[in-house]
Amino acid sequence: MKSANGINLTMLCDFYELTMGNGYFAEGMQDRITYFDVFYRSVPDDGGFAIAAGLEQVVDYVQNLHFTPEDLAYLRRRGIFSEDFLTYLKDFRFTGDIWAVPEGTPVFPHEPILTVRAPAIQAQLLETYMLLELNHQSLIATKANRICRAAQGRTVLEFGSRRAQGITGAVTGARAAYIGGCGGTACTVSDQVYGVPAAGTMAHSWVQMFDSEYEAFKAYCRTYPDNAVLLVDTYNSLKSGIPNAIRAFDEVLRPLGITKCGIRLDSGDMAYLTQKARVMLDEAGWPGCTITVSNSLDERLITELLLQGAKIDSFGVGERLITSKSSPVFGGVYKLCAVEDADGQIIPKIKVSENVGKITNPGFKRLFRLFNRETGMAEADYICLHDEDVDDSRPLEICDPVSRWKRKTLENFRAVELQIPVFKDGRLVCRLPSLGEIRSTCAYQVSTLWPEVKRFDYPHQYYVDLSPKLMDLKDTMLAEHGRKEQA
Amino acid sequence: MKSANGINLTMLCDFYELTMGNGYFAEGMQDRITYFDVFYRSVPDDGGFAIAAGLEQVVDYVQNLHFTPEDLAYLRRRGIFSEDFLTYLKDFRFTGDIWAVPEGTPVFPHEPILTVRAPAIQAQLLETYMLLELNHQSLIATKANRICRAAQGRTVLEFGSRRAQGITGAVTGARAAYIGGCGGTACTVSDQVYGVPAAGTMAHSWVQMFDSEYEAFKAYCRTYPDNAVLLVDTYNSLKSGIPNAIRAFDEVLRPLGITKCGIRLDSGDMAYLTQKARVMLDEAGWPGCTITVSNSLDERLITELLLQGAKIDSFGVGERLITSKSSPVFGGVYKLCAVEDADGQIIPKIKVSENVGKITNPGFKRLFRLFNRETGMAEADYICLHDEDVDDSRPLEICDPVSRWKRKTLENFRAVELQIPVFKDGRLVCRLPSLGEIRSTCAYQVSTLWPEVKRFDYPHQYYVDLSPKLMDLKDTMLAEHGRKEQA
Repeated sequence: MKSANGINLTMLCDFYELTMGNGYFAEGMQDRITYFDVFYRSVPDDGGFAIAAGLEQVVDYVQNLHFTPEDLAYLRRRGIFSEDFLTYLKDFRFTGDIWAVPEGTPVFPHEPILTVRAPAIQAQLLETYMLLELNHQSLIATKANRICRAAQGRTVLEFGSRRAQGITGAVTGARAAYIGGCGGTACTVSDQVYGVPAAGTMAHSWVQMFDSEYEAFKAYCRTYPDNAVLLVDTYNSLKSGIPNAIRAFDEVLRPLGITKCGIRLDSGDMAYLTQKARVMLDEAGWPGCTITVSNSLDERLITELLLQGAKIDSFGVGERLITSKSSPVFGGVYKLCAVEDADGQIIPKIKVSENVGKITNPGFKRLFRLFNRETGMAEADYICLHDEDVDDSRPLEICDPVSRWKRKTLENFRAVELQIPVFKDGRLVCRLPSLGEIRSTCAYQVSTLWPEVKRFDYPHQYYVDLSPKLMDLKDTMLAEHGRKEQA
Repeated sequence: MKSANGINLTMLCDFYELTMGNGYFAEGMQDRITYFDVFYRSVPDDGGFAIAAGLEQVVDYVQNLHFTPEDLAYLRRRGIFSEDFLTYLKDFRFTGDIWAVPEGTPVFPHEPILTVRAPAIQAQLLETYMLLELNHQSLIATKANRICRAAQGRTVLEFGSRRAQGITGAVTGARAAYIGGCGGTACTVSDQVYGVPAAGTMAHSWVQMFDSEYEAFKAYCRTYPDNAVLLVDTYNSLKSGIPNAIRAFDEVLRPLGITKCGIRLDSGDMAYLTQKARVMLDEAGWPGCTITVSNSLDERLITELLLQGAKIDSFGVGERLITSKSSPVFGGVYKLCAVEDADGQIIPKIKVSENVGKITNPGFKRLFRLFNRETGMAEADYICLHDEDVDDSRPLEICDPVSRWKRKTLENFRAVELQIPVFKDGRLVCRLPSLGEIRSTCAYQVSTLWPEVKRFDYPHQYYVDLSPKLMDLKDTMLAEHGRKEQA
């Protein structure tokens, strides 16, 4: 196989998932029930929140977990796995439970976005691909959301396939960008596979193929009178491109009664050029001609262009979106938080670190978002143990898990559990929303965040607090660990 | 389809490739022969050169170009493509020529890495995927090469799948990292598909699953006595992890006569910890125990750690390699450089820009690398028109295309043509080297670059010069364009 397109995703795992799996098998620990949380520690671009995305692909992966005879032959050739283990893998499938935050939901550092309860080998094997998919799509959805917020209601189109990091970087990247708020993509197959609206008109090569820019524009208008968006910067936008576009619109579109058309600028100073272009188009009787710009854009440049009075109807955003160039890693991790003993008793586990921000929250947990009943706005997230609940009929004191002196009492709030059951005993138990629904979820949920959380720079830190019982457990386990260290 | 794994890559194109194709068809221009160059403008991380990679996947793509009935049905539903065009796509295949620089070759800005000669529709359709693949793999191969050079002969392992941007970001990313010099990957399927050696031992969860770190280590040594690399930082590396590792090695490995083993550190200060660890291991009689480190590494940190005397045998590099975090975009472009008229006459095309660095080199061209016959070192690259040749039996004056006053006369050099024929009339005409050969090509070719070109910061700019005839052509075309602007 030359291309990685069409591989068995079960084999997309770090090799250590398999060596550990074989080791658990050798130790008779393969059926021990484990709990793992997916969470992340810091928001890309130092933003105030991230957008969770990628769950649909994780579900598909979990449902299709299997090893083919070729996979087993490859593993056997490695010479380190026991035959018993390879036989076990032959009928491998997922039999555990998964809970997850729905796609499109804003999520904050340190809270469990997804939780797995499964036999050790199974839970371990999921790690690599699940993180890869959630990290990638959450990264792009988060960046797209920043860029779309900067565009203040104007359309943002995802144009970055050619600079994407691989095939799925482009294709599922366009899906994630749509969830985050983009209006469409240039990537044809993302439309075909996921229904992300694909659009596009011409490159500079179209203009260069004709004897003149004017003839290139006229030919395009003739073929696509209902969607004539002309790229005007091949030679000189103001002296040549826009006048030629107006001439082509006048000659081809006006006789047809068409008033909607567009120009695209891909170079030069966008604030200056778009203001000049707007005047030229309006004076020529083309107020319905939209202006699209598409060069090195991201949320910073879009914000500045709009502040400077640029006249832009839509933005085509390429490499800075599809790679999240200014912050190209989403650092989701997968950490053991509990195991069950032979009697089904849940024993919490903690990962300590000298860096207090890297200490995990132990135990099998629940995650709630607390909305103010009057304003509808999200006030805080709240993590408690699985056998706790939130009574939203009475005031609740919440406390910051690191800065303990930060306490706040919430009243008149509504508690919404964020993780929903996705798999139960290996069976899918939730309905997967359509991509349009996910995109709407994202838009609505982001609208419940206060503006100070949405600031691009130095956003207000949203509260993600622990229940007193969970805080006590964490303290006890850390103290226990400290005693062991002294011993 | 939920996943983008297994799509028809022919549909991974920007939508405008199809609208332009349909437009060329409408204008009767579909069979016009065009020439397009792939080149890039600036080196990632402001380095001195890039490593070309991804050609094998491009070849595979070109050989498999086709539209399925489902693809055509999707395009028909879009309602803008003519039936004639859709009928034409039904039997679509590539019938043109492609020349390219072999994978693993160092390449420099503005030189043609790949050139396509094909009917307009075909050449246009290739653009998106070809750029995506070459950009992605060249990005990662280039970054891997920087990181491996920093490691000064020590092994670098690619560990980043979970933070990769999508499935192929991980899988072909590992392939590219291997080309650039990595010794292996954690990504199992990259081994299975491409033969990139995959390795891995344990995560923190392995240690946490046992009642004690010591028992976890002992169990691991029992199962994998020949490859016992123990992760020692789950609790406290110096107080707990390393002493427990030594105890497990002593109890399980020593009686078996095994002297090779390893520890891995994934947190804390690597310079301090590895020096302490080395002393502890040596004093305990384990000089054959290697030390691997794996936290937030890239070429900068590796350079500093080695300068500070860190005792490291191998590096596991994750997100900063697999996403090329500090410079996550490789900006390869695909530009029309010529067309043929009805008589087969080649008419050069140029794309002008106010930014002199963005002006393209017109015409159908050849690319040579000039090696000094005495030292074997690469002195300059030389671009001329297709009907020119380089006579390396006599001195050659080369001239910088932008800074015209920079001239240099080369003597006693050997000229090697860099682009080789890959497709002729749609047929593959070159042997594809194995991945090991590509990796060796890269290592050897990089060794022919002077150290000043390989500096991480402010490298010397390697000469990429034009033949006098090509320079004249470019000047003439720019002057012609200037006259049109005045008119």
